[in-house]
Amino acid sequence: MTDEVNLQEMGQRARAARRGLATLLTTEKNDVLSALADALEDSANRRAILEANGADISAGEEAGLSAALIDRLRLTPSRLAGMAAGVRDVAALPDPIGDTFEMRRMPNGLHVGKRRTPIGVIGVIYEARPNVTVDIAALCLKTGNAVILRGGKETLHSNRALVDVIQGVYAGAGLPEGTLQWISSPDRGLVMEMLRLDAYIDMIIPRGGAGLHRLARENATIPVITGGIGVCHLYVEPSARLDRAVEIVFNAKVQRPSVCNALDTLLVHRDVAARFLPLAAQRLSDADVELRCDPPSFGILAAVEDARWRMVAAEEADFGNEFLALILSIKVVDGLEEALEHIDRYGTGHSDGILTEDYTHAQQFLDAVDSAAVYVNASTRFTDGGQFGLGAEVAISTQRLHARGPMGLQELTTYKWIIYGQGHVRE
Amino acid sequence: MTDEVNLQEMGQRARAARRGLATLLTTEKNDVLSALADALEDSANRRAILEANGADISAGEEAGLSAALIDRLRLTPSRLAGMAAGVRDVAALPDPIGDTFEMRRMPNGLHVGKRRTPIGVIGVIYEARPNVTVDIAALCLKTGNAVILRGGKETLHSNRALVDVIQGVYAGAGLPEGTLQWISSPDRGLVMEMLRLDAYIDMIIPRGGAGLHRLARENATIPVITGGIGVCHLYVEPSARLDRAVEIVFNAKVQRPSVCNALDTLLVHRDVAARFLPLAAQRLSDADVELRCDPPSFGILAAVEDARWRMVAAEEADFGNEFLALILSIKVVDGLEEALEHIDRYGTGHSDGILTEDYTHAQQFLDAVDSAAVYVNASTRFTDGGQFGLGAEVAISTQRLHARGPMGLQELTTYKWIIYGQGHVRE
Repeated sequence: MTDEVNLQEMGQRARAARRGLATLLTTEKNDVLSALADALEDSANRRAILEANGADISAGEEAGLSAALIDRLRLTPSRLAGMAAGVRDVAALPDPIGDTFEMRRMPNGLHVGKRRTPIGVIGVIYEARPNVTVDIAALCLKTGNAVILRGGKETLHSNRALVDVIQGVYAGAGLPEGTLQWISSPDRGLVMEMLRLDAYIDMIIPRGGAGLHRLARENATIPVITGGIGVCHLYVEPSARLDRAVEIVFNAKVQRPSVCNALDTLLVHRDVAARFLPLAAQRLSDADVELRCDPPSFGILAAVEDARWRMVAAEEADFGNEFLALILSIKVVDGLEEALEHIDRYGTGHSDGILTEDYTHAQQFLDAVDSAAVYVNASTRFTDGGQFGLGAEVAISTQRLHARGPMGLQELTTYKWIIYGQGHVRE
Repeated sequence: MTDEVNLQEMGQRARAARRGLATLLTTEKNDVLSALADALEDSANRRAILEANGADISAGEEAGLSAALIDRLRLTPSRLAGMAAGVRDVAALPDPIGDTFEMRRMPNGLHVGKRRTPIGVIGVIYEARPNVTVDIAALCLKTGNAVILRGGKETLHSNRALVDVIQGVYAGAGLPEGTLQWISSPDRGLVMEMLRLDAYIDMIIPRGGAGLHRLARENATIPVITGGIGVCHLYVEPSARLDRAVEIVFNAKVQRPSVCNALDTLLVHRDVAARFLPLAAQRLSDADVELRCDPPSFGILAAVEDARWRMVAAEEADFGNEFLALILSIKVVDGLEEALEHIDRYGTGHSDGILTEDYTHAQQFLDAVDSAAVYVNASTRFTDGGQFGLGAEVAISTQRLHARGPMGLQELTTYKWIIYGQGHVRE
């Protein structure tokens, strides 16, 4: 089932593909993306992909994967159609490559500016979501990057079938062989080798849990985009419009609890806790959210008669924890300064917000909170490439270099300086 | 002479300083910079710094350091005045921190944009140039970053005296204790420990030779800005204005041969080699440049009577070599494509240029060459923060993420997304 994998050769092929990819015209790239979308909807391809996916599902069920994981693995005709539509969306986005910007004339007459270029070769390490294979293929092609993919072993058959379709379309279009390559072996030693392939790979994007991100950062000799771990906070002030605040908290926690921008901890100002917490708890009980309360919030909520919410006393570990489930920790704070300190100490720099009508506090919160996305009076669930107007999302970065927060096409690019002289020499 | 160094505690102090530094007003930062410049010119401080520097010079001479290295080490009253002037220049630059940009209204009415913030904590590892201590201090303070410095052991006394002055000014201004810290021990094990201090340091800038860059990339668990190694090319076409081309080649090679943007290899189109090479060799002989010629260029130059230039046959190792000296390798090529292939194979992605009047070739060269700075009809010596209008230079990056080419103040910053809602929840 597994193939001989030679990462050095894959790296060389990817590097050899760079120049051809960097100079492709937008129309050429869009034509290939359109052909790829069609190929994903072709009935023979569809049959092959779904059959391969069936083999992954069977293997996963035998291995005792959870129902949630099996669901992430599963492809259906409608999910395939969704992937094809995603590829067409990428084709429709503006192409950032080749843009020239910040071009200025220096005092000596030299014209100096920047031109946007592909990063080069991107390595992506991901887990059990076969749709990532197609998403990343489309985003990398649109930005002229060669890519080396390493998917999880649970999706081995599905990825093989998807890669066959993608590589078939690319070959038909005459793209270089190294445009998209896939590590077909589930050998984990290859991941370690890939992380040190700095002679060929320019950037590593891990897409998975905290363990994968840590592994990549600890072992890579290549720049790694880490992120995706979100311990998200909302802080409610007495001046907040409480009806709105209740709905924002509910949305941030409940709308999709399994993702990184979902709410984990609610901070409530002492002066509004007795009014706000029962309203919020009542609303959160509509989705059967478990509340993990610090002593003051527990006291307030325990005093309410006929309460229908689920609550327990919070432990220290409930703060700074990414629940990815219908669980919310709650803490009463004395004011803005304590809220800022809590977020600084327990947050992961992902998405945090203040709910307030106090203008000065809103501005102070925006300035002081050091997270990828800082909100006033909105749900943390908006931290997303699509919602922020990027059109597509490669990943969400919680690191500070190169890109922060949602990464779109532009974050898969770099720039070079270009200089037009007329015989200029330096004095 | 060496102190007890606890990097964990230094990291904690630097992190504790972050919030205070991030919210300093521009006027506050500029006042401190102005006080620092004054302190460097204060006569008692000057005496202490020069005395400490004298101890480094003596130790260096005893240790048999080269005259060039001793010169780099040496501080004089006029060099100190230059450092003070550099600090005042940084004070005069616009402050990038706090700028809000790309603010847009989304279809749902959410206002989403970016705000520029400090990176956080920067680690700088450098070698025998005490002026870097003051340069980096000023650049980091202006951008609200805390910094941990690790200088070379040759500059131990000088750095101690400079750091005393800087920390004295910072303490007097009430800046947090962790604003600027210096690793006073020459123990190399501390460098390795620093490279893995990812809990506290957000970015590592190595400033030194290829070995230091490699060490940092291989061992860091923190993003590293690598760069500074420049194997630079100029390619001369038959259509070039040869008088200008001669002066550009001369300038690129001779104006300051010891730096990374100096010319290393001259590529000449076959059709102009016999006309151009004798002119260039003649001019280069004014600076006694040693020419290392491939067989065709050797043949052409050897046929000239009464030639006064120094030339030898090039070896393979002369291509792709950063000479940092008055040495130039020369190769005759068949045309643009061969020039591009040579640069792709032997270059380091630093600075490369074409000298031509052919419009199409100039555009093709700008598109195809994948270097931090790509030139038409100008000397490679312009790759420099000051020359490119950045006002100051932190380093020159030849990596592809975060920053490429000369890095100014903006490259010491990141951004956060800020979102103004009015009760927005995600559907």
